[in-house]
Amino acid sequence: MLENCIENVRNQTPLVHNITNYVTVNDVANVILACGGSPIMADDKEEVSEITAICGGLNINIGTLNKRTIEAMVIAGKKSNELGHITVLDPVGVGASKLRTDTANRLINEVKFDVIRGNISEIKTLALGNGTTRGVDADVADTVTKENLDSMVKFAKDFAKKQECVVAITGAIDLVADSDKCYVIYNGKPQMSKITGTGCQLSGMITAFVVANKDNKLEAVASAICTMGLAGEIAFSHLKEYEGNSTYRNRIIDAIYNMDSETLSKGAKYEVR
Amino acid sequence: MLENCIENVRNQTPLVHNITNYVTVNDVANVILACGGSPIMADDKEEVSEITAICGGLNINIGTLNKRTIEAMVIAGKKSNELGHITVLDPVGVGASKLRTDTANRLINEVKFDVIRGNISEIKTLALGNGTTRGVDADVADTVTKENLDSMVKFAKDFAKKQECVVAITGAIDLVADSDKCYVIYNGKPQMSKITGTGCQLSGMITAFVVANKDNKLEAVASAICTMGLAGEIAFSHLKEYEGNSTYRNRIIDAIYNMDSETLSKGAKYEVR
Amino acid sequence: MLENCIENVRNQTPLVHNITNYVTVNDVANVILACGGSPIMADDKEEVSEITAICGGLNINIGTLNKRTIEAMVIAGKKSNELGHITVLDPVGVGASKLRTDTANRLINEVKFDVIRGNISEIKTLALGNGTTRGVDADVADTVTKENLDSMVKFAKDFAKKQECVVAITGAIDLVADSDKCYVIYNGKPQMSKITGTGCQLSGMITAFVVANKDNKLEAVASAICTMGLAGEIAFSHLKEYEGNSTYRNRIIDAIYNMDSETLSKGAKYEVR
Repeated sequence: MLENCIENVRNQTPLVHNITNYVTVNDVANVILACGGSPIMADDKEEVSEITAICGGLNINIGTLNKRTIEAMVIAGKKSNELGHITVLDPVGVGASKLRTDTANRLINEVKFDVIRGNISEIKTLALGNGTTRGVDADVADTVTKENLDSMVKFAKDFAKKQECVVAITGAIDLVADSDKCYVIYNGKPQMSKITGTGCQLSGMITAFVVANKDNKLEAVASAICTMGLAGEIAFSHLKEYEGNSTYRNRIIDAIYNMDSETLSKGAKYEVR
Repeated sequence: MLENCIENVRNQTPLVHNITNYVTVNDVANVILACGGSPIMADDKEEVSEITAICGGLNINIGTLNKRTIEAMVIAGKKSNELGHITVLDPVGVGASKLRTDTANRLINEVKFDVIRGNISEIKTLALGNGTTRGVDADVADTVTKENLDSMVKFAKDFAKKQECVVAITGAIDLVADSDKCYVIYNGKPQMSKITGTGCQLSGMITAFVVANKDNKLEAVASAICTMGLAGEIAFSHLKEYEGNSTYRNRIIDAIYNMDSETLSKGAKYEVR
Repeated sequence: MLENCIENVRNQTPLVHNITNYVTVNDVANVILACGGSPIMADDKEEVSEITAICGGLNINIGTLNKRTIEAMVIAGKKSNELGHITVLDPVGVGASKLRTDTANRLINEVKFDVIRGNISEIKTLALGNGTTRGVDADVADTVTKENLDSMVKFAKDFAKKQECVVAITGAIDLVADSDKCYVIYNGKPQMSKITGTGCQLSGMITAFVVANKDNKLEAVASAICTMGLAGEIAFSHLKEYEGNSTYRNRIIDAIYNMDSETLSKGAKYEVR
């Protein structure tokens, strides 16, 4: 089932409204195009309701939040809920400042999200108020490992249950959970962490996948994450020895562009817990 | 004549002031550099008059407009007019929200543009108030085709006459019209639509081309569009089977960087109506 | 000594807070990752103090300044000083508008910088109030050449003495000076000027280098500049004849990603005056 999600994206070309940071926004747009969606960026409070209304999904990313855009996020989020559209939160760097933590908590309180995706430190901060966020990267103390997998899966399910949404915790091992089922995904390469914005890109792609696979949200998120991880593996295999993180960034998006069900079916590495 | 325009850009290195969206701004800057111009981005109302004054052209793009930058667009546009500088409008997503439509109309009313470039839905919205904009992409119902070419050419000329400017409608077939002449351009590849911001890039490049070819504005715009389309064809020919939209984006800019009169002369595919 | 600086960056993974322009911000982030640092972007006045506090260095770049972000720059700069963190200024386009000149002067007056990096026109504007800035590029009248090297070195040292910081003037020949020592660096390729943001990238990388080499600030800056220039040479050697400025941009970042002490030791071209 996971492997068919991307075909649905390509067949439906879902429009995704992104209120996102200016660091990685271009890559987010190109990734959404690569997987078969169509991105729109708009962050002025006067227009976000209308833009959200013509889209199928809304992707809120707080990476370079400010007072003006926070208002827009709340307005767009509420509109998206009102219309029953898919709504995704990427709480970038939550825990690193009071503004980020307050904003993420406000968003979670005022908007119902279908998916929340972050690294383990971000999700811990949201769930427990005590993640050890190191800037925008997860702290090593928080890593999901084979040793702590059982407790991490439980943690993800519990937070998903509390929030009534799909929770995606991405890192070396990715967890995608609803209240009673968790995909544990082993795709990807450690070198992906040396590219800015792979998380942001993933949240954009997740939004497109869930819009096009509304009846299987959990699988859609897992599929998007397998797609990104597998693209990271494929892209890595094409890198020449003098190439580095910048070319790798391009090749990952390229690999998403060329991803199909068959490749995903063969390459996806996951288990269900 | 079309083929010499780019040499004039390279010889004159025109400075282009861009008030543009944060999604595609980096590519816009690199494309302006690639064709021989020099880009400056500045969007605070306190400085845009001065920045416009030291440039040869102003490129206004409403892709991620907000209250603050809308004011800056109007101020810069008026200053550009006052100084007789080349002024270009890219009404991204006009029709998708009241804010975009109002802003584009305000700009057209308060600023005299030398060139307006958009997709067919955007231009229809500006001209008729009824384009069927689907986010930031043209709706398929609006497409310029061989079948409706005569009426579309007339539409472009009529709008150019009304606005007293060059109108560029870009898509699978591109139209570049003033009140009595229309270039119909057949360069390009459908895969270019899977790259974010090729339109934005084109508007930036058009500005540089017109500044360096002031006496032949229509030809300068047509030349910039042929250059972009031909670059899309050349870039595509270098793509490996595992490469996709991200590498394609880079290779198009590369191909513009390497474009010369001879290549353009051989590769430009257009007719005049 | 220059050649070991990058290993210290890789070993310490310094966090760098960037308040920078939206044109080149993605490349700045990827360059900081490429050299071994970790970038964070945040520009709202409510959070910049906290973000600066968790980082080791602050990189302020005025490339697309506005009223809101100027306040954030001042607040973050003062906090960085208070904590004894490395603080770097990139006065992009100072001289091109009153807002830029006033802002750069305000920053210099209210914040103590460890490093100021700009092109010769920008540094002249700061030091003398009379650089002939041509937009965001240095004016040819200002170029550092072999003929005027002695006087330029003296100029750099004098300004460094006055500001009590390291002054980096980058161009075809780069100067890195404190009050009594100046590195004159000959790495790099002229084609690098056809890529937007190599200066911005350099300032980000300089911040990471100085944070990781606090006891040798002058050498750390010189090392970062050699690294960028040498990366430009290595990247150029891998370009195919149909590749241009966009692919070149990626390959330079790639070459930084692959840079090591041995390569730098062999390739660095500089003298000390």
